[in-house]
Amino acid sequence: MTQAINLKDKLRQFSAHWSPKIVAAFNGHDVMVVKVKGEFVWHSHPDTDDFFFVLKGNLTIKLRDGDVRLGPGDLYVVPKGVEHCPCAEEEVHLLLIEPAGTLNTGDKATAAVKEAI
Amino acid sequence: MTQAINLKDKLRQFSAHWSPKIVAAFNGHDVMVVKVKGEFVWHSHPDTDDFFFVLKGNLTIKLRDGDVRLGPGDLYVVPKGVEHCPCAEEEVHLLLIEPAGTLNTGDKATAAVKEAI
Repeated sequence: MTQAINLKDKLRQFSAHWSPKIVAAFNGHDVMVVKVKGEFVWHSHPDTDDFFFVLKGNLTIKLRDGDVRLGPGDLYVVPKGVEHCPCAEEEVHLLLIEPAGTLNTGDKATAAVKEAI
Repeated sequence: MTQAINLKDKLRQFSAHWSPKIVAAFNGHDVMVVKVKGEFVWHSHPDTDDFFFVLKGNLTIKLRDGDVRLGPGDLYVVPKGVEHCPCAEEEVHLLLIEPAGTLNTGDKATAAVKEAI
């Protein structure tokens, strides 16, 4: 594959919220884009940090000891094991990176299926 | 650390080209910003993929079997072991992710020191 991956092009291909799409692979991780709006669920990932980079909009990552507010061009890494709850009043576009197979809710019963686009 | 990392703020703190600055840690990787201009050296990384995301400007990643052209919002992952040579006619701002300790030139003798900012 010798073509760049344009994230806006990828984001135009779907509209569902909280449904990450895999756009590339990197060192055993899935590189994903996702659209989110509203409040997610409180969860943590015992075995991985959680990488968020805001492409568009404003995201709040609630932590038990305070909120992290992110706008376009901001990134934040939630350390592994740390409970968090992402939420957004208006739609936000994110770049996410997680080890392949990571459950987005931290729970097999509720995790989204991550398809490649 | 419960504050978002703004990449533009980080990029304002230095001007040197080809000198990556570490802004976050993620699963044993350094998350870095870098300013580049001109042509780098042909190199490869035997043990890691190489993650490029363009924040500003236009980057060409030369590969032995063709060039990959990236603009703002584009990403590309050079697979491990694949020879590549990034180059840019005008200054480009990039988000890079590599395992901590990766040599940016693939060679200890010529690699840049990566400091955190």
